[in-house]
Amino acid sequence: MVSNFKPTTDTYLPGAKTLPAKYYTSEQIFEKEKKKIFEKFWFCLGHTGRIPNKGDYFLIEALGEPFIVLRDKNDQIKVFYNVCSHRGTLVCKPNRSGATEGKFNRKTLQCHYHGWTYDMDGRLLSAPGMEEIADFDFASNGLTSPPLYIWEGFIFISFVNDPIPFEQIYGPMLGRLEDWKIGSLIRGHTETYKVKANWKLIFLNFNECLHCGIAHKTLSKFIGDKSAQNDLSDGPFLGGLMEILNGADSVTSSGQFCALPLGGQLTEKTARKGWYYTILGNLLLNIHPDYLMFHCLYPQSATETRIESDWLFNPDSDTTLGEKFAKNEPVEVWAKTNAEDWELCEMAQRGITSRAYRPGKYSNRESLLIAFDEYYLQLMNNNFMNYIRRRIKWLTSMLWK
Amino acid sequence: MVSNFKPTTDTYLPGAKTLPAKYYTSEQIFEKEKKKIFEKFWFCLGHTGRIPNKGDYFLIEALGEPFIVLRDKNDQIKVFYNVCSHRGTLVCKPNRSGATEGKFNRKTLQCHYHGWTYDMDGRLLSAPGMEEIADFDFASNGLTSPPLYIWEGFIFISFVNDPIPFEQIYGPMLGRLEDWKIGSLIRGHTETYKVKANWKLIFLNFNECLHCGIAHKTLSKFIGDKSAQNDLSDGPFLGGLMEILNGADSVTSSGQFCALPLGGQLTEKTARKGWYYTILGNLLLNIHPDYLMFHCLYPQSATETRIESDWLFNPDSDTTLGEKFAKNEPVEVWAKTNAEDWELCEMAQRGITSRAYRPGKYSNRESLLIAFDEYYLQLMNNNFMNYIRRRIKWLTSMLWK
Amino acid sequence: MVSNFKPTTDTYLPGAKTLPAKYYTSEQIFEKEKKKIFEKFWFCLGHTGRIPNKGDYFLIEALGEPFIVLRDKNDQIKVFYNVCSHRGTLVCKPNRSGATEGKFNRKTLQCHYHGWTYDMDGRLLSAPGMEEIADFDFASNGLTSPPLYIWEGFIFISFVNDPIPFEQIYGPMLGRLEDWKIGSLIRGHTETYKVKANWKLIFLNFNECLHCGIAHKTLSKFIGDKSAQNDLSDGPFLGGLMEILNGADSVTSSGQFCALPLGGQLTEKTARKGWYYTILGNLLLNIHPDYLMFHCLYPQSATETRIESDWLFNPDSDTTLGEKFAKNEPVEVWAKTNAEDWELCEMAQRGITSRAYRPGKYSNRESLLIAFDEYYLQLMNNNFMNYIRRRIKWLTSMLWK
Repeated sequence: MVSNFKPTTDTYLPGAKTLPAKYYTSEQIFEKEKKKIFEKFWFCLGHTGRIPNKGDYFLIEALGEPFIVLRDKNDQIKVFYNVCSHRGTLVCKPNRSGATEGKFNRKTLQCHYHGWTYDMDGRLLSAPGMEEIADFDFASNGLTSPPLYIWEGFIFISFVNDPIPFEQIYGPMLGRLEDWKIGSLIRGHTETYKVKANWKLIFLNFNECLHCGIAHKTLSKFIGDKSAQNDLSDGPFLGGLMEILNGADSVTSSGQFCALPLGGQLTEKTARKGWYYTILGNLLLNIHPDYLMFHCLYPQSATETRIESDWLFNPDSDTTLGEKFAKNEPVEVWAKTNAEDWELCEMAQRGITSRAYRPGKYSNRESLLIAFDEYYLQLMNNNFMNYIRRRIKWLTSMLWK
Repeated sequence: MVSNFKPTTDTYLPGAKTLPAKYYTSEQIFEKEKKKIFEKFWFCLGHTGRIPNKGDYFLIEALGEPFIVLRDKNDQIKVFYNVCSHRGTLVCKPNRSGATEGKFNRKTLQCHYHGWTYDMDGRLLSAPGMEEIADFDFASNGLTSPPLYIWEGFIFISFVNDPIPFEQIYGPMLGRLEDWKIGSLIRGHTETYKVKANWKLIFLNFNECLHCGIAHKTLSKFIGDKSAQNDLSDGPFLGGLMEILNGADSVTSSGQFCALPLGGQLTEKTARKGWYYTILGNLLLNIHPDYLMFHCLYPQSATETRIESDWLFNPDSDTTLGEKFAKNEPVEVWAKTNAEDWELCEMAQRGITSRAYRPGKYSNRESLLIAFDEYYLQLMNNNFMNYIRRRIKWLTSMLWK
Repeated sequence: MVSNFKPTTDTYLPGAKTLPAKYYTSEQIFEKEKKKIFEKFWFCLGHTGRIPNKGDYFLIEALGEPFIVLRDKNDQIKVFYNVCSHRGTLVCKPNRSGATEGKFNRKTLQCHYHGWTYDMDGRLLSAPGMEEIADFDFASNGLTSPPLYIWEGFIFISFVNDPIPFEQIYGPMLGRLEDWKIGSLIRGHTETYKVKANWKLIFLNFNECLHCGIAHKTLSKFIGDKSAQNDLSDGPFLGGLMEILNGADSVTSSGQFCALPLGGQLTEKTARKGWYYTILGNLLLNIHPDYLMFHCLYPQSATETRIESDWLFNPDSDTTLGEKFAKNEPVEVWAKTNAEDWELCEMAQRGITSRAYRPGKYSNRESLLIAFDEYYLQLMNNNFMNYIRRRIKWLTSMLWK
């Protein structure tokens, strides 16, 4: 049971070292991760703030699976596998200018190959030529929908049909972010990145600020390793807060607020603080007083990860602040910081493939990384331990026969 | 025996569904297809209308094999593996501007590495340095030639040395196209495409026009699903005719003739009709009253296919019609239609890789696809059935001992 | 013992043929070559003439391993695996403009991730955060250094910790090049190439000039097959001299000297001669009276090789000759010749993959290639022979029990 996992300790584990190279380079291990991690946890496809109006949709590919994410005419979020039940064709495709998001002009989804037409619940409405087939069952030929859960506006799906319920697995996160009313935010900016690094190197990079002083000259004006306080340290959910330094109000290029406070007002929890979390499967959160940036990681292989980064704002900022709504200010800081981080992850990936790489010791300030690696190994070795237990049970039973 | 295959029926097979995903995605299956299909049937490398004059040649790669195709000084078509008998180097290479076709300026083929020189029959004429080697056998060091058959000007080779004779395997096609005198046509235009789809998806796409109304706005002005009449439906050779609609004379952007009739005059078989055939291994034919377009498919992997499309015309069109020879008119219609089709095939390829893909039911109007899939499976499982038969024989013999 | 290898003969081996295709196409064989050849011989990473001044460095990747090569403040050449002992990150990276060489501005190497700092001997000087860890051992966390040997200025490393000593394995080469004082030369020009061919095809191409007349119109003005005299023909080290023809002084576009003589003066050995050697693992030498060009081969896979080519000159040429130091003249000749050679190697690679390829007979003038192939097979089958010997020994011991 995932949520029952108890980390050994939040502090330095004597002898704790980085993982062996194969965990960052082997495609076999990546395949195993799909089963053991990405199919066990829920997978985030973005935030509802990307599709704020009825009929909005976007197309996204996760672990090779093509999805349609849309807001229907009843303001409900729906997710479907973008696969026609007729001959498997993608039902929706990028529009003429190549965009993978837009607005549906009609109330149905129609495959552009043979015109099979589905309603916004995925039900098959018409299928040219199939009406002549006596036993054709429209009911069983709708679009396939993955299990879906919306948490704070984040759209989570599961790749398996019988996932561990979201509330059970994500217990420690539920309610934790209420002050910022994240579910109501809208998207102000987005960036996509292709990073030639294993997805776990990006998790590790995110979970320590020991590198900030060396690597992030701009970001370091606002936050630093010394002010970090972890409040979640049990593997699947890691992170905590950092005080915003030097009298700045937020992490923006001017240090001033760029938008209305998330949640409508500053609270003790939100004012002059950045909160940072990594959430398995694939979601990284950077919450600031007046904006939220998050990364969705889309692992492509053992050695490459696509990242979609969105900046979310209080939806009233635009109408209330007018020109003072300076959404580019946090983008500037983080576009620079993200580029610096992804390059570090790529340099780590390249070095780890060397025969000179050996697991190296973690410092005290990398305690979350130790927790992550430990939890990761536990997840990956899960079945093997069960197998051993079953074998022991069987041997024991044989002995007592 | 290939040509003895009898399709179960030309009409809807209750329950017939698309193939499982692996047949479109597995490289292992693609390797098996090379043995079971592409080495069993003959493989088309284009049409003699591409090299109308003595000394004309082109270079082409098929299933990884490099070939030289040429018309020699006796007006004979010759095909050689483009591999020098000395150290394996490509004998002919693209010319300075990168073109893979042209005119030989001399009467020999000379390897540009060490100057081994062959005549147009592939015989080794000279080999610098080898004259000093007493036992060097010039006769056994010529260029290698694959089995060759010219049918209606189409240049077919076999990848194996002892193929099933062409006339035997292609019996149903022989003589069928005589009205159009295809062997005498010349090439007026060519296009090449790289399609990220399994080659079979292109065969399937070609074998039904159920999608034309939805996907081909331009083409649909001229032909439609309802006028289709299959005349070949037994797997290796599929297709039939479609009436040209709306009073048009041909499938051209104006609807008017663009060239002299193929065969010199219109006949009942050719006038106002398009004839469409898929011919295993890799040839797709679109025959119209005044031009022929064909596709040669060059599978690159399980998931990618290169296509060369040529437009052929009555060779008298140019001199007789002058400026009225409007060869661009059919190119316009088909360049658009081809692009639409290849995109559909790519969308199908992507959807089929999803875990949400399940074999879907075919409609009545996709009967040729059912025939193709059935025949395909029979070809692929051929050896396995033989294996089963052998095992049964052996078991039987054991029982009677 | 490598240096004990005795080639059967320097002249034509009746029946000697090119190797089977798999040796040029199989990734499995390439993996085996890493063990049997590249880890057995030493591997050249370039020449000290590339980093003539204290603090100069360059980064280079060889067989997937990232290296830093530098000249320290004591004028010593040092090579390190470019892998931080902390979390495996590349310690040095290309500078802002992408260059992989330059000058160190400080006296230490600092990892740009968490600031671990090493001195120019590779010793770990500081590691932020690790001072809090009681048992952290600085001494064992320095940079890793491969075995290093400088011969005539060429920087050789070994991929294994206990290599056969350089002097032992390279005995036949030691002292042979003294006339040219190669160790003192400086780099005047460099080119890099990506060649889609197996590295051995480049060795073979280099070891015969039978192709020069056909393939190298420019080079043939200066040297030709007929004047070649082999002086090393025992597999790992192959080559010899060629007279410079037609009264030219050197192989330059004008035929005149472009720089001061290597070694300060012409000798009988150096005047009007080109000396050409291939040296396993990866070094190819072209020595001319007034310049040296060498290629370092960096195999990327069974079918691709990166090549770095450097032109070296007498370091006094610049100051003594002024504008008459025409270093572009040999570059012109060889840039053209190299391009011609790499294309031939690529054409050979493509042809060899064909099913029509069969091992072809070598001529008398390709005797070095026979020696190379023979020696190569002996290296590759080494362990297998040992295995057979061990098995025989074991069987014998059983018989006498």
